[in-house]
Amino acid sequence: MRTSGIIAVDAMGGDHAPAEIVAGACRAHAEGIPVVLVGREAEIRPLLPRRNAPPIQHAPDAVGMGDSAVASVRRSESSSLRVAMRMVADHRADAVVSCGNTGAVLVAAVFDLGVIEGVERPAIGTVLPRADGGRLFLLDAGANVDCRPEQLVTFGILGSAWAEANGVRSPRVGLLSNGEEDGKGNTQVRATLPLLRESGLAVVGNVEPSAAMEGACDVLVTDGFVGNVLLKAAEGAVTTVVQLLKQEIRRYPTGILGAWLLRGAFRRFRERVAWDAHGGAVLLGTRGLVVVGHGRANANAVYQAVRLAHRTLSADLVHGLVRRFEGDVRDDAPADAG
Amino acid sequence: MRTSGIIAVDAMGGDHAPAEIVAGACRAHAEGIPVVLVGREAEIRPLLPRRNAPPIQHAPDAVGMGDSAVASVRRSESSSLRVAMRMVADHRADAVVSCGNTGAVLVAAVFDLGVIEGVERPAIGTVLPRADGGRLFLLDAGANVDCRPEQLVTFGILGSAWAEANGVRSPRVGLLSNGEEDGKGNTQVRATLPLLRESGLAVVGNVEPSAAMEGACDVLVTDGFVGNVLLKAAEGAVTTVVQLLKQEIRRYPTGILGAWLLRGAFRRFRERVAWDAHGGAVLLGTRGLVVVGHGRANANAVYQAVRLAHRTLSADLVHGLVRRFEGDVRDDAPADAG
Repeated sequence: MRTSGIIAVDAMGGDHAPAEIVAGACRAHAEGIPVVLVGREAEIRPLLPRRNAPPIQHAPDAVGMGDSAVASVRRSESSSLRVAMRMVADHRADAVVSCGNTGAVLVAAVFDLGVIEGVERPAIGTVLPRADGGRLFLLDAGANVDCRPEQLVTFGILGSAWAEANGVRSPRVGLLSNGEEDGKGNTQVRATLPLLRESGLAVVGNVEPSAAMEGACDVLVTDGFVGNVLLKAAEGAVTTVVQLLKQEIRRYPTGILGAWLLRGAFRRFRERVAWDAHGGAVLLGTRGLVVVGHGRANANAVYQAVRLAHRTLSADLVHGLVRRFEGDVRDDAPADAG
Repeated sequence: MRTSGIIAVDAMGGDHAPAEIVAGACRAHAEGIPVVLVGREAEIRPLLPRRNAPPIQHAPDAVGMGDSAVASVRRSESSSLRVAMRMVADHRADAVVSCGNTGAVLVAAVFDLGVIEGVERPAIGTVLPRADGGRLFLLDAGANVDCRPEQLVTFGILGSAWAEANGVRSPRVGLLSNGEEDGKGNTQVRATLPLLRESGLAVVGNVEPSAAMEGACDVLVTDGFVGNVLLKAAEGAVTTVVQLLKQEIRRYPTGILGAWLLRGAFRRFRERVAWDAHGGAVLLGTRGLVVVGHGRANANAVYQAVRLAHRTLSADLVHGLVRRFEGDVRDDAPADAG
């Protein structure tokens, strides 16, 4: 039943598919991470290196990036995305990496991998850089726009295991709120906090977004609507800051020289805050590992996404979650190979 | 009935009250903005300049900054905050500026000024800098954590008038969501968008936070929970970015020289993104103008808050809102003097 950590890469998903996807996957493959490229063989073949090329699993169809992607995923069983998912379901691979439409990836994962018993719906987990140098594990970043308190507690359990799989010991779990005292928050938050405190997790209580980014918790739990707003607000603020700083630098001749002297610092800074540097989002709660890269992913972002999948497989995240929710690993569970 | 644009400054509200509050208010007063300092006369008097000092309205009590501030505001009619509010209610002043606990300011405003008919509950409006150089008028930034769709439509009307009073012609109103297509968003957003489109406002539809910060709309409508999360996520992201950039700069000797050459650009940049530079938040929907400065406000932030109140009075925002919601200005309406 065990394979050896093979990662099925959806070569047709993403704005720059297949060229950038194939390039990134080949780089990871060259470094020893076993990869299978899933998609139209005639389009992928010419993009491969002569030596040490990863194998191709042919899939005739591709899911678009637009809003009809979810509908198209339901229709088409022969799309690269669903073929990649079924490779994991059939134990021919251990994880899927796709830079396709996130909603489509989620639907395909639920269809073909299934959801861990006790997890109503999977969540999307995303990592944000923190001001104290740590990482903030945020979920749900967009899968479930309306959540009941019980779902948020499940997200806490999923997120805690996910942070542990990333090397965080006894992750501190915070509930996203607009104030830190118990009793703050909207109806949803006030109903969730008491349940979360009973979960046995290391719950620090309500946490404001700014405090979370400064290190008040490791795991930040919220519904997919608010989590997505938080993520895009942080991205928008960073874009605005960089834009305004550029404008100010251009006003002064010394500014241009200063910026030139700082070019190394700016480059390293970009590498640290760039979302692609973290490899992308992880589906949490599916019976198999799925990493969702950014839709605009270039080769480097794809490479990072494959590396993220590889690291997460090594940490045995999915098996751990299956054991936690279902008591033991069922034989039919397509989970990571560890 | 008309006064002449007098601004009642709550001298006892804020972490650095009364010294910084008095200093900021006196600076505005020296520039010709009529100010009354409200608070303990014995504490305020020694802080005043010898010449051209603003008058003092004595109030024996002060509302603390902590969580019991809201309870204390209900109890104490003789606090500086409530005395300042009643000066506006009694037409002895035209606007209140307070850097006290936001919840306490809101409660005092509702108690003593009242709410415009047709506005169920006031909202807190905050201005964010946009990457395109424009300003984003966000509401509700924290007053109402749970909102019905009808309330969000009211926020759209309040926000549109507020942006107009700040010189934006035909403000484009967006509904905060996790995706821009109609039909995206949570239950609340999906129920609100059709109502908002019927409001007669210039509605652009659902807007993601990142798009809003890049200029997709002028007014961004959401409930007070999500709005507060957005605001604090943006603040947290800016803090993180500045922190990480500092770390990177310190790694290189050229970085330190570069940062020195860039010090002017960094200073101007800080001035542009600093929240105190915008003067603070505005209560929208109360029958009188109230500006809430930052709790940590220093003299400059207080000065900016008084200037914001002065500009907003000149734009006749509150009278405009009263006319819009109530048809005409009632005689007993303590609204701004224009």
